[in-house]
Amino acid sequence: MHGENNFKILNTSKISSARRGVLSTSHGDIQTPFFMPIATKGAVKTLSSFDMENLKAQILLSNTYHLYLRPGMEVIKNFGGLHKFMDWPGPILTDSGGYQVFSLASRRKITEEGAEFASHIDGSKHLLTPELSMDVQQNLGSDMVMVLDECTPPDYDEKTLNNSIIRTVRWAERSKVHFEQNLNTSNNPGALLFGINQGATDRNLRVRHALDLINIGFDGYAIGGLSVGEPFEEACGVLEVLHPVLPADKPRYFMGGAKPHEIVAYVKRGVDMMDCVLPSRNARHGLLYRFVHEDLSRPDFYETIHITNSKYAIEQTPLSADGDELSRYSFAYLHHLFSVQEMLAYRLATMVNIKFYLELMARLRSGIEQGAL
Amino acid sequence: MHGENNFKILNTSKISSARRGVLSTSHGDIQTPFFMPIATKGAVKTLSSFDMENLKAQILLSNTYHLYLRPGMEVIKNFGGLHKFMDWPGPILTDSGGYQVFSLASRRKITEEGAEFASHIDGSKHLLTPELSMDVQQNLGSDMVMVLDECTPPDYDEKTLNNSIIRTVRWAERSKVHFEQNLNTSNNPGALLFGINQGATDRNLRVRHALDLINIGFDGYAIGGLSVGEPFEEACGVLEVLHPVLPADKPRYFMGGAKPHEIVAYVKRGVDMMDCVLPSRNARHGLLYRFVHEDLSRPDFYETIHITNSKYAIEQTPLSADGDELSRYSFAYLHHLFSVQEMLAYRLATMVNIKFYLELMARLRSGIEQGAL
Repeated sequence: MHGENNFKILNTSKISSARRGVLSTSHGDIQTPFFMPIATKGAVKTLSSFDMENLKAQILLSNTYHLYLRPGMEVIKNFGGLHKFMDWPGPILTDSGGYQVFSLASRRKITEEGAEFASHIDGSKHLLTPELSMDVQQNLGSDMVMVLDECTPPDYDEKTLNNSIIRTVRWAERSKVHFEQNLNTSNNPGALLFGINQGATDRNLRVRHALDLINIGFDGYAIGGLSVGEPFEEACGVLEVLHPVLPADKPRYFMGGAKPHEIVAYVKRGVDMMDCVLPSRNARHGLLYRFVHEDLSRPDFYETIHITNSKYAIEQTPLSADGDELSRYSFAYLHHLFSVQEMLAYRLATMVNIKFYLELMARLRSGIEQGAL
Repeated sequence: MHGENNFKILNTSKISSARRGVLSTSHGDIQTPFFMPIATKGAVKTLSSFDMENLKAQILLSNTYHLYLRPGMEVIKNFGGLHKFMDWPGPILTDSGGYQVFSLASRRKITEEGAEFASHIDGSKHLLTPELSMDVQQNLGSDMVMVLDECTPPDYDEKTLNNSIIRTVRWAERSKVHFEQNLNTSNNPGALLFGINQGATDRNLRVRHALDLINIGFDGYAIGGLSVGEPFEEACGVLEVLHPVLPADKPRYFMGGAKPHEIVAYVKRGVDMMDCVLPSRNARHGLLYRFVHEDLSRPDFYETIHITNSKYAIEQTPLSADGDELSRYSFAYLHHLFSVQEMLAYRLATMVNIKFYLELMARLRSGIEQGAL
C-alpha cells in the first residue's frame, strides 16, 4: 500500500551496489531487479496477455498517453481498469504520458499548468496537467503511477534545464497531492507513486533534484531523461552519484532503453526496475538475442543474430530448449516465416527476445543471491 | 494406407445425402465431414500450429506452389517433411500447385507435358508436371495428395473445356503412376491420392469426367472448378448429379471457398471435406462470424459482424464462453486492438472465425448423427 514500505531487500551485493528484493503491489509480488515488457496500447506488440503469462513476465508497462487517446477513459472506466480490459492479472506500471507528449504529439507547449499538445491521431487539443495524469493513471488502475515530469532533451541550455527541473519538482508535489486525494476512490487504492529524477547529465543538478523529491516523499524513485543519446558512461555516472542519495529502502527505476550489457551495468549500480522497447522492436526486424556465456560480467555474454540471414534457412535448432511454445519451432522455420512475411514471424521473434530479457533478469537475481555480481 | 479403404461411414442421413464418417490417415483419424484451415505457406496466417491444436483443428491444408518456391524442397527434405518443419502433428492435405499457377503465376502456358509458369516472386521459370507435383507433395509428406489438374475458368468455350477435361484425365493417370512409384521411398508411404473432377457447370461433362477418374481409381475424389463465380445453385446441381456417380465409400472433397450456409448445403449433398480462405481473410478485415440459431437449416443460423463498428467499443461480452484463450478477451478489447492496428487483433479475430467454422462442422456431424440433417 502507498506510504507503507512495499519494498523488501533480500540481498545486497558486497562487490557492487546491486540489490535483490521483493516489491509488493496490489496485483502481486515482483522479484527485483526486474524488466517490464511494454504493452504500449494495452498489448505487448504481437502478443496477448496469455502469451505474457506463458513467458512468465512479472509485470507490464503501459503508456498513459496512448490509452488516454484510444480507447479513451470512458471505455477503461467501464471495465474497472486496464487489468480487466486486457485481462492481465499481474501488476502494471504506467508512465505519466509526458514522454509521449514530448516525443509524439505535435504543437506542444509547456506552461506551469501542464503540457498542451495536439493528438498525433486527430489533431485534437489536450492539456496534460499533473492532476490529469494522476486521474488517468488511477482510472487505469495502475499499480505504479508516475508523476508528470518533463523529460528534458539533451540540448537544453543550463538555464532552461534548471527552470525545467524546478518545475518538475512543483509538478511532482501537485501529482502527489492529487494522487492522494484520488486514492480511495480510484481503481487501485493500493497503487504506489513514483517521483522522477531529472537533470540530464549534470550530476549536481541530479543530486539536488533527487533531494527535492525525497523531501516530498515517494514510494519509489525513477531516473528519467537518460537513454536519450548520451554516452553510456554518463548514465552510469549519474547512477553512481544518485546511489548514496536515494533512499536505500525504496525501489529505483531506470526509465527507457537499455541493451543487455547496459542492464547489467545499471543493476550493478543499484537499479531495481527497467523497461525497454528494444527486444520487441528489434524482434520485428528479425534481430534476435541469445546467450553466449554464463558470466554476465563479460561484455560478450550475449550476441544478436539476424534471423533473415540465409545461413539460418536449414538450421534445425529449436528456438528454445525449455519445452515451451518456442521449443516447437526451429530457426529455419522462423527464417522461412520472415521470408514470406507471415505475422507469426513477428510474434515468435518477439517471444524469443522478451524471453531473453526476462531470463537475463533471472540470471542477474540469482547472481546477486550467490554473491557473484 | 493408399489403396485400402481408409474411409468408414458411421451414419447416413435419411433426409439428405449427408454422411458422417471417419477418415484414417498416417497422422491420425479425422471425423467427417470436416473443414481444413489453410496454412498457405506453412502457417495459418497469424497463427501457430500450437494455436491450431488449441482450436482443435483436425487437419490443415498447405499450398504446394508456395512451399515449392519458398522455403523450397531442399529445406523441407532436411526436416523430413512439412509436419516436422511446422511442428504440426496432425494430418496435412496439399493441393497440386495447379490452382496457384493459374491464379498467381505470370506467363503461364499449358502443354500436354504440364503447366509452364514464371514465379510471382522472382520471375524464375518452372514447369509443373503431374510428376513434379507428386514429387513435391510426397516430399512435403502430405497425407492427402491431389493430382495435377487444370482448374478451368468459367469463360472456356465448350471445345476448350472439353480438351482441358480430357487432358486432366491423362494428367490424373500420370499422377497416379508416379505417386505409386514414389510411395515407399517418400516422406509419407501412407499418403492417400485424390482425383479431381472438373467440367465447370456442364453436368454431363462432370459425370463423364467422374467416370473416367473412377476408372483410374483414387482414394478420394475432389470436386474442383467450383466457387469460381458461378451461382451457388449451380454448384449444388453439380453435387447432385455427382452424388450417385461417385463411389459411396470414398471421401468427397469440395475444393475452395464456401460461406457457412453453403457448407451446410454441400454437406447435405454428400460432401465430406471442405476448405476456405474466407474465415481467416475476413477476420483480418474485422469481419467476424457468430451463431444466432441452433437450427442449421435456417439460412440465418449465423451472422457476420464488423468488429470495427463503434457499437463494440464498450461491449464486455467475451469472444468465447468456452474457457479457452478467446474467453479472456472482450469484443471491446478486440475493437480497440483493431482501432490501434495491433497485430494481436488479426490473430484473435482469425481464431474467432476458424473456431466458428470448426464448430459449424462439429454441429453438422452431430446433426447427422441425430438424424436432424
